[in-house]
Amino acid sequence: MKKVGIIMGSDSDLPVVQKAADVLSDFGVPYEIHIYSAHRTPVEAREFSTTAKEKGFGVIIAAAGMAAHLAGAMAAGTTLPVIGIPIKSEQLGGLDALLSTVQMPSGIPVATVAIDGAKNAAVLAVEILALGDEELSAKLEKFRADGTAAALKKDAAINNK
Amino acid sequence: MKKVGIIMGSDSDLPVVQKAADVLSDFGVPYEIHIYSAHRTPVEAREFSTTAKEKGFGVIIAAAGMAAHLAGAMAAGTTLPVIGIPIKSEQLGGLDALLSTVQMPSGIPVATVAIDGAKNAAVLAVEILALGDEELSAKLEKFRADGTAAALKKDAAINNK
Amino acid sequence: MKKVGIIMGSDSDLPVVQKAADVLSDFGVPYEIHIYSAHRTPVEAREFSTTAKEKGFGVIIAAAGMAAHLAGAMAAGTTLPVIGIPIKSEQLGGLDALLSTVQMPSGIPVATVAIDGAKNAAVLAVEILALGDEELSAKLEKFRADGTAAALKKDAAINNK
Amino acid sequence: MKKVGIIMGSDSDLPVVQKAADVLSDFGVPYEIHIYSAHRTPVEAREFSTTAKEKGFGVIIAAAGMAAHLAGAMAAGTTLPVIGIPIKSEQLGGLDALLSTVQMPSGIPVATVAIDGAKNAAVLAVEILALGDEELSAKLEKFRADGTAAALKKDAAINNK
Amino acid sequence: MKKVGIIMGSDSDLPVVQKAADVLSDFGVPYEIHIYSAHRTPVEAREFSTTAKEKGFGVIIAAAGMAAHLAGAMAAGTTLPVIGIPIKSEQLGGLDALLSTVQMPSGIPVATVAIDGAKNAAVLAVEILALGDEELSAKLEKFRADGTAAALKKDAAINNK
Amino acid sequence: MKKVGIIMGSDSDLPVVQKAADVLSDFGVPYEIHIYSAHRTPVEAREFSTTAKEKGFGVIIAAAGMAAHLAGAMAAGTTLPVIGIPIKSEQLGGLDALLSTVQMPSGIPVATVAIDGAKNAAVLAVEILALGDEELSAKLEKFRADGTAAALKKDAAINNK
Amino acid sequence: MKKVGIIMGSDSDLPVVQKAADVLSDFGVPYEIHIYSAHRTPVEAREFSTTAKEKGFGVIIAAAGMAAHLAGAMAAGTTLPVIGIPIKSEQLGGLDALLSTVQMPSGIPVATVAIDGAKNAAVLAVEILALGDEELSAKLEKFRADGTAAALKKDAAINNK
Amino acid sequence: MKKVGIIMGSDSDLPVVQKAADVLSDFGVPYEIHIYSAHRTPVEAREFSTTAKEKGFGVIIAAAGMAAHLAGAMAAGTTLPVIGIPIKSEQLGGLDALLSTVQMPSGIPVATVAIDGAKNAAVLAVEILALGDEELSAKLEKFRADGTAAALKKDAAINNK
Repeated sequence: MKKVGIIMGSDSDLPVVQKAADVLSDFGVPYEIHIYSAHRTPVEAREFSTTAKEKGFGVIIAAAGMAAHLAGAMAAGTTLPVIGIPIKSEQLGGLDALLSTVQMPSGIPVATVAIDGAKNAAVLAVEILALGDEELSAKLEKFRADGTAAALKKDAAINNK
Repeated sequence: MKKVGIIMGSDSDLPVVQKAADVLSDFGVPYEIHIYSAHRTPVEAREFSTTAKEKGFGVIIAAAGMAAHLAGAMAAGTTLPVIGIPIKSEQLGGLDALLSTVQMPSGIPVATVAIDGAKNAAVLAVEILALGDEELSAKLEKFRADGTAAALKKDAAINNK
Repeated sequence: MKKVGIIMGSDSDLPVVQKAADVLSDFGVPYEIHIYSAHRTPVEAREFSTTAKEKGFGVIIAAAGMAAHLAGAMAAGTTLPVIGIPIKSEQLGGLDALLSTVQMPSGIPVATVAIDGAKNAAVLAVEILALGDEELSAKLEKFRADGTAAALKKDAAINNK
Repeated sequence: MKKVGIIMGSDSDLPVVQKAADVLSDFGVPYEIHIYSAHRTPVEAREFSTTAKEKGFGVIIAAAGMAAHLAGAMAAGTTLPVIGIPIKSEQLGGLDALLSTVQMPSGIPVATVAIDGAKNAAVLAVEILALGDEELSAKLEKFRADGTAAALKKDAAINNK
Repeated sequence: MKKVGIIMGSDSDLPVVQKAADVLSDFGVPYEIHIYSAHRTPVEAREFSTTAKEKGFGVIIAAAGMAAHLAGAMAAGTTLPVIGIPIKSEQLGGLDALLSTVQMPSGIPVATVAIDGAKNAAVLAVEILALGDEELSAKLEKFRADGTAAALKKDAAINNK
Repeated sequence: MKKVGIIMGSDSDLPVVQKAADVLSDFGVPYEIHIYSAHRTPVEAREFSTTAKEKGFGVIIAAAGMAAHLAGAMAAGTTLPVIGIPIKSEQLGGLDALLSTVQMPSGIPVATVAIDGAKNAAVLAVEILALGDEELSAKLEKFRADGTAAALKKDAAINNK
Repeated sequence: MKKVGIIMGSDSDLPVVQKAADVLSDFGVPYEIHIYSAHRTPVEAREFSTTAKEKGFGVIIAAAGMAAHLAGAMAAGTTLPVIGIPIKSEQLGGLDALLSTVQMPSGIPVATVAIDGAKNAAVLAVEILALGDEELSAKLEKFRADGTAAALKKDAAINNK
Repeated sequence: MKKVGIIMGSDSDLPVVQKAADVLSDFGVPYEIHIYSAHRTPVEAREFSTTAKEKGFGVIIAAAGMAAHLAGAMAAGTTLPVIGIPIKSEQLGGLDALLSTVQMPSGIPVATVAIDGAKNAAVLAVEILALGDEELSAKLEKFRADGTAAALKKDAAINNK
């Protein structure tokens, strides 16, 4: 199975980003986590993106805050799908990272999820990988059904059903 | 090859959304366009999303403006990757559609591109489909290289090179 | 008397939404509370909305945060008045939920109240139901008069009157 | 049948607000239009709100731009449901009017629709009045069905069905 | 000397608004504080504004949060200068109150100060009253000079001067 | 009678600012207009503010766009009331100028009016000057009554009264 | 004298960016203009930044719109001062580009000027280069004095002085 | 070596601004810190800016919150490069200070860094001063390399390399 690369701009993003790794683990999807910054380690960040395909990666998840260029930098170096997680900042609530991640120029898309939406980034990666993988697809259907069942259980609980 | 479903909430979105169709045509990726609204035709919208996988769709692109629920409604009905295009509105410039599309709750992601970013939505769809398609992947690499060459040509032009 | 349906997207919304239930209780207006999500339990959410009228509901209150589609999804399934409560999020203060709830496309309105405005959602529901109910209307007038009196009492208090 | 009062803060709002009147006409709902301002004609505005119930009004629609206090001022004077239409301004796109209309304090709700959402304000008024009016309710169901049919026709058109 | 009326929409605003009263006390400017709400006690609020001039008020300070209509309602009832203090809300940081207070329509101004800017509201009131009062004007000049001296002292302190 | 100083940061602001001058003319209030910039002509701007009181000015109106420091710079140089008009910019609709004008630090207030609210700036100046001027006060009352009458006339017109 | 590199992400930015070149020409500061994109031509963009110092550049000006990563990418490749010009977009007025440019992470600054502020970017570049160049410094002083004189002339003109 | 002037509007800014001083100390760049306010001590602020060049300053860093005029006021008084640090406020997260600092009118630039970006302001100052100082330039290269190494070490750490 193709791997998912999870890249974050700073180790301070780890508490949020860890949720993406946990989801991938639950799905049995292999992944690597790296701390690469578009600004502090641009060479390594680019190296990762340009070699990701040949190294067996299928999707890259990139998380960054503020002027969040990381996902865009990844997208510039590969034609693999790149998923961006804007990280909340103390000052602007993540609006800066959201706009920096999603407003990509024509030709180089970043698949952006919600601010701090690490879990959804991983689910989206699984959805993408599941396109060519029946088993993973079945797990996804179960994951979704479980989510529905859990929600209905909560509804039943508050109604003493 | 798996098809791409392009759904828009209103026919007024067509001038923007057409660019997505054009890109898919250029890549030889089959697609269907539909006008389904999460609010005006919720039954048909849901029907489309829940049957998309079995009908041979691999990715769904959904474009909507204002309280843009369409991509989220698609995502609720399928485990296929769903790409959301927020459409600019006259009042708030598309900030409403962007937030309505990208800020999805945990478990149901929408891969959001830039406001009016129809071309990028299609490129992202191609990137996703190309994961399991060597030929499409090669076209993508060429597309990217062409983009780079075109940009460098413009640089040369203003420098009389 | 017609019932009010109070729907929330997640049980984490309950602390805010409970205030709506409390107001309805004070007015003696019957209600049901449900946890239905436009994304996690779209079938049940839609089922609720399309059968609400025949089940004796007169108004639906829907509360959700982030890309808050719940009220819009309710409105898509019924011609009953639907009241939307945008729930504050940690990242954007509820601006995302507000725009996702209020900016509905032409033809399918959602009566939106303030961010976290659960109490007002209930008062609005009572105002709507009171149109055809003299007794409820009288209670509303008393509620309003009590609110005025309480406010004037506070003014008197700081002026030692 | 109870009447709808349509109040606007300035005659410059008429082009937008007229759509509300047109919808009410289509539904055969009687209405009165007035230009009352919370700031320029506060006495008349208040007089209208405090006497609306006894004069046979069932719902008040209030449209205003900028620091849009009109709907709130109406709501302060009556326990009838008050629907607010924030009007777009040239400077801030209507964000000022939206926040001024929707962020009402506890106890005095305004049912807010989208910026410039005059049509939806009228539909909401009809939904409210239809609660006690079988005939109007039937018209609403037809209106909704027509909307669905029109949307599906557009889908068929672009697919040459 | 003319009095200053300090009006707030809710007693929860008192901790902020008290600073305005303290400044006026320091300047020896007489004032009255009232809790009047444009929505909960519109009659008393209007009564205050329309009789303020004859009762010897020279300036009205009005503080309110969210859809902050209070200052505008005051301004609608008097030709005295009205100063508006937008109060911060938990959800939108006071942007709602700021726009609701400052974006007044043509003809009825509100002199708006910063979000939670109660101290400055009082200083502004003093500046206005000092136009016709040499003694107050002299106190203002001293207040300003004291502010400058205090600031320079802090500069000296960090430079061990 | 005390004069009003109308200062603008750039001659491109004149079309907006002219409305302030027109209102003052209508009220017979003497004024001077100057183009002084807090950045391009800081010496002259400061000179104006520090000598305004002795030269017979009673109020200063300052209009500027973008990082609108002009009103704040005026306020720093005088204890006269300073009224700020934020001017709309093409990029951010005047939100930049609004925040730059209204969010003044403690001790130095600027009485801020709406974006492009030149007319209201002048009305506010008249309200301030009228505190010590019975005749001007009477004109203001008439101005307000005229505004009310004009608004009511428009209401009558659309109702064929 | 050290050269200024003017880089823009797209040739559509040229009408804005040309003003920077014109200012540099006026000051006799040598410059090169390039169209390099952080996303479409990341190799060339990085190559430019990493070799800029040795090629005799002293300052880099980078202009880009939307998710404006160009200035940040330049800054990641050099320790020369990098000036960022956020370019206005049709959708969000340039707020996206502003936040993407200015909110740089710790360690890698971008000296950001106003949205579309190409002229100021050039003036800032001149100010930086003038630190070690008496002649350029003198030109700057004259440029500033000329700006002051021009502004005062406009003041004189409207006052018929 | 030329000195850096670090100016802050209020001593409450010191905890943020201190980081700028620490960076300069690390680089061995001489600096002075002052508390000058564009509003409370405009004379001293201007005096500082107009004499900075002759006193041996090469760069001015100015930090202020809310309607942050300080950097602009500095820039108005000198042709030295002025770096602005917008300080976060409790109400608007620093958006007010950011726009007040960066949106400078044509001719008088402020090199703006991120909200609370004191460290980057200092790094930018060092970059500017290093243009004419080989030793400082070498230190900068080392500082950058250290930053890269530290980031890579963190990557290695989470990968147990």
